[in-house]
Amino acid sequence: MADNANTATANIGVVGLAVMGSNLARNLASREGNTVAVFNRSPERTRTLTTEHPEANFVASETIEDFVNSLSKPRTAIIMVQAGAGTDAVIDQLTNLFEPGDIIVDGGNALFTDTIRREKAVSATGIHFVGAGISGGEEGALKGPSIMPGGSAESYKTLGPILASIAAVAEGEPCVTHVGTDGAGHFVKMIHNGIEYADMQLIAEAYDLLRRNAGLTPAEIADVFAEWNKGELESYLIEITAEVLRQVDAKTGKPLVDVILDQAGSKGTGVWTVQNALALGVPVSGIAEAVFARSLSSHPEQRAAAAGMPGPASPVAVTDREAFIEDVRRALYASKIIAYSQGFDAIRAGAEEFNWTIDLGAVSRIWRGGCIIRAQFLNRIADAYAESPNLSALLTAPYFAEAITSSQEAWRRVVVSATVTGIPAPAFSSSLAYYDGLRAERLPAALVQGQRDFFGAHTYGRVDLPGVFHTLWSGDRTEIEMN
Amino acid sequence: MADNANTATANIGVVGLAVMGSNLARNLASREGNTVAVFNRSPERTRTLTTEHPEANFVASETIEDFVNSLSKPRTAIIMVQAGAGTDAVIDQLTNLFEPGDIIVDGGNALFTDTIRREKAVSATGIHFVGAGISGGEEGALKGPSIMPGGSAESYKTLGPILASIAAVAEGEPCVTHVGTDGAGHFVKMIHNGIEYADMQLIAEAYDLLRRNAGLTPAEIADVFAEWNKGELESYLIEITAEVLRQVDAKTGKPLVDVILDQAGSKGTGVWTVQNALALGVPVSGIAEAVFARSLSSHPEQRAAAAGMPGPASPVAVTDREAFIEDVRRALYASKIIAYSQGFDAIRAGAEEFNWTIDLGAVSRIWRGGCIIRAQFLNRIADAYAESPNLSALLTAPYFAEAITSSQEAWRRVVVSATVTGIPAPAFSSSLAYYDGLRAERLPAALVQGQRDFFGAHTYGRVDLPGVFHTLWSGDRTEIEMN
Repeated sequence: MADNANTATANIGVVGLAVMGSNLARNLASREGNTVAVFNRSPERTRTLTTEHPEANFVASETIEDFVNSLSKPRTAIIMVQAGAGTDAVIDQLTNLFEPGDIIVDGGNALFTDTIRREKAVSATGIHFVGAGISGGEEGALKGPSIMPGGSAESYKTLGPILASIAAVAEGEPCVTHVGTDGAGHFVKMIHNGIEYADMQLIAEAYDLLRRNAGLTPAEIADVFAEWNKGELESYLIEITAEVLRQVDAKTGKPLVDVILDQAGSKGTGVWTVQNALALGVPVSGIAEAVFARSLSSHPEQRAAAAGMPGPASPVAVTDREAFIEDVRRALYASKIIAYSQGFDAIRAGAEEFNWTIDLGAVSRIWRGGCIIRAQFLNRIADAYAESPNLSALLTAPYFAEAITSSQEAWRRVVVSATVTGIPAPAFSSSLAYYDGLRAERLPAALVQGQRDFFGAHTYGRVDLPGVFHTLWSGDRTEIEMN
Repeated sequence: MADNANTATANIGVVGLAVMGSNLARNLASREGNTVAVFNRSPERTRTLTTEHPEANFVASETIEDFVNSLSKPRTAIIMVQAGAGTDAVIDQLTNLFEPGDIIVDGGNALFTDTIRREKAVSATGIHFVGAGISGGEEGALKGPSIMPGGSAESYKTLGPILASIAAVAEGEPCVTHVGTDGAGHFVKMIHNGIEYADMQLIAEAYDLLRRNAGLTPAEIADVFAEWNKGELESYLIEITAEVLRQVDAKTGKPLVDVILDQAGSKGTGVWTVQNALALGVPVSGIAEAVFARSLSSHPEQRAAAAGMPGPASPVAVTDREAFIEDVRRALYASKIIAYSQGFDAIRAGAEEFNWTIDLGAVSRIWRGGCIIRAQFLNRIADAYAESPNLSALLTAPYFAEAITSSQEAWRRVVVSATVTGIPAPAFSSSLAYYDGLRAERLPAALVQGQRDFFGAHTYGRVDLPGVFHTLWSGDRTEIEMN
C-alpha cells in the first residue's frame, strides 16, 4: 500500500470496506472525475481491495489521519459501517479531523432519529452531516443504487453530483434526489424497506394461492410471474421471484423453494417502519401484516403446537385456472397499490412531523431504478403526485382508483378463496379491509367512541353539532357538552 | 384544611387528585385500617376533595414536605399524575424527602421503559419504586380496580396488603398480584390495554356486520349482545356495548351510535403495545389492526377522498338471520381467543427479554375483575396456564383449540360475508389469517427467504440439512454453505 498521506488528491472517500463499502468505492472509482480514498479499521481489508482492483486507483490509507489528509476540500467521506455504535465512533473520529464545510455521509441503514441526533451534533461544528439511504444491495452498490440523502441543501451542492455519478439511472434520470434535511433520507429509506416487506409478502401470498389452490407447480408459477412481469406488475421483485421459483435444488432435484426452511428473517427496518407509522397515526396495515407474517414464520415451537389444528372441512377447488390466475394478478396489483399508498402516507406524515419538505413525486422517481422495489409502477405514482402534489391518499388518484375499481371484484374472489380454503393471506385481506374501511360512509368507530365514553368518559363528537359530548352513563344518561 | 404536618398518622398517601387520584384516595380511605394522606400541587383541589368527602378523614397537606411528614414509616405514596414529565418531577420531590425503605408508587399509565429507568434511579437511593398499572377507569379506581404492580418483592410486602384492600374482588380473590420486578407491572398493563383495543374492534366489527349485512337495528343488536353476555362471551365490554347500542339520542330521537362521530380516539397504550410487540418479534396482528382501524377512522380528509369508490356490484344479502348471528358470535369468540393468545405471547416474550418472572395464570386471574377486559373467559386462560405453565400458544390449549375447532367454519363464513359485501372486518380477517398461518404445514416464508437470498445474499436454512446456505444467483447458481 502506497503512503498517500498529505497528498489531498481524492474528491471522495469511503470508510468501511465490507462488501457494501467496497462495492460503493469501486462504483465511485469507475466514474469519470472521481478519485476515491479508502480506509478500513483493519488494513488487511483495504489491501485486499486495492490488490484485487488496481483499475480503481484507490488512494488507500492505514490511519484515519492519513485518510483525511488524502481528501481534497471540501472533504467528503461516506461511512459504510454496520449501523449502530460503530457509526458513532467513526463520526467522532472524522468530526475531530474534518474542518467546517467538510461533509460526513452516513450511507448505512441508520434509524432516522439517530441521524437527526447526529446531524444536530455534527452540524454544530460547522461540518455537514448527511444521512443517506442507499438501496440496491451489494449489486446496486457496485452498479448503481438508489440513493436517498438527507442533510443540508448546501452539502448537497458538493455531494449531489458525486452521488448522481454512481446512482442507477432510470429513464435518463439518476436515482438520487435531496430528500430533505437531517434524517429525511434515512426516513424515506426506512419506508422504502417497509414497502419492500409488503411487496414481498403479497408476492408470497400470490404464490401460495397459485400453488395450493390452483395446483400449479413452482415452475409453472415461475412462468406466471415471468408473464406478469411484462404487464403493470413489472418489477424487480416479480422478476427475481420467477428466477427463485425456477431454481431446482441440485442435492434433491426438488424445486429450491421446497427445500428452503420456511422461516423468514428480517433486519429490522420493517419493524421500524411500522413502529414509526404507529407513532405518526398512519395505518400501514399491509406492511405490518408482512412484518408479522415473517415473525409468525419464525416461531417454530408455536407452529409445531398449532400443527394439525383443523382447516376447512371441504375446501373448494379452483375450477378455472386461467381465471383464477388473472384474479390473483389483479388482487396482487390492487393490494400493492394499497401498500404504496400507505407507505407514501407515512412519508407525508413524517415530513409534517419532522418539518421536512419532501417531494413525493421525486421520491417515487428515484425508486424507479437501483433499489429493490424498482418498478414501472413508480412512474404512475410520479404522475399522480405531478397532477396533485397534495393528494391525500395515493389510491384515490385517478389511475389507481381506476385500477382498484376494475380489480376489486377479483380481489374479493381471491380473499374469499383464501378464506374458504384456509390459506393464510393476511396482506391481501388486510389491504382489502383497509380499502373497504377508507371508502366506508360510516365506520363502527362510532361504537368504539361510545364504549370509550361509557367506561372512561373519553367523550365523543357528534355528526350534527360542533363540540365535545359525554353521556352520563352511570347517572341519568343525559348528554352533557364538555368545555 | 387542618395542619397535619408531623403527625405521621397515614399509612398510605396519594399525590395528584384529579379524578383517578381522588377516587383511588376515597377507595383507600373506605377500607378498614387505612388512613390516607392526600396532596395536590394546587391546594384548591385538595380542599374540594376533603370538603366533599369528610367521611374519608383524609390527612391533607398543602406542601409536599407536610405530606411526607404525615406518612408513617415505611412511607408509602401513590403518584396519580398525568404520565410524563410531571411524574418525574413528583418522583424527584419524594425521593429527596423519603428515606431508605420508603415506597414510591407510580399508579399512572407510564411506559414500562420509563418505569425501568425510574426504578433503577430511585432504588439506588434505597427507596423502593413501584410502577403499578391500574385499570378500571374512574369507577374502578373508586370501587375496585385491577392492579398490576411491579417493583421489588420486598416493597410488595408492605404495599401488597394495601393494594389488596382496594382492588376488585373476583371469585373471592383480590385482583392484584406482584407481577414482576421494575417495569413488569406497567408492561402487563400496556398489554392489557392492547388486548382491550382488539376486543373493542372485534365487537365493533360484529356490530357492523349484524347491522349492515343482517339488517338488524341498534336496539336489536343490543338484545343480541345482551344475550351473548349470558354465554361464553360474557364480559364487561359486551355488557356495555348493549347499553351503548340501546341508548337513544334525546336531541334527534335516533340511536346514539348513529349520532356519534365515527372517528375513534386513543391514548397511546395500543400504539405502545404494537410497537413493543414488534420489537419483541411477536405478531400481535389483531391488536395492530384495531389500532390501525382507529387511526384510519380519524383521517377524515382521506375518507372523503375515498368516499364513493366502488364496493361489490351485487352484495349477497343474509337470508338466515339467526344462523348469521350465531356465526358472528362464533367468529367473535374465535377472534377474541386469537387476540388474547397474541397478547399473552407478548407478555411471555417481554418477560424473557426483560428478565421478569411473570405468572401468566395469575395475570389472567387479576384481570377477571375491576378492569375493562374483565370476563369469565379469563378463568379459562387461568385454567390453561395452570395445566401447562409453559404453553407456547394459548390458542393451542385444549379448551381454546376445541372452541376454535368448533367455530372455524362459522368464522370463515363471516369473513367471507364481510369480503363479498364490502364491510371492513380487518380484525376478524387478520385473526383468521393468523390462525391459518400458525397451523400451516408450510409457509411461503420459504419464497421470501429465497428472494432475500437473491437480492441481498441474506442466506437461508434448509429443511433437510443443518447449516446456512446461499445460492450464487449472479454466478453459476450453485449452492454454497456459509460459515
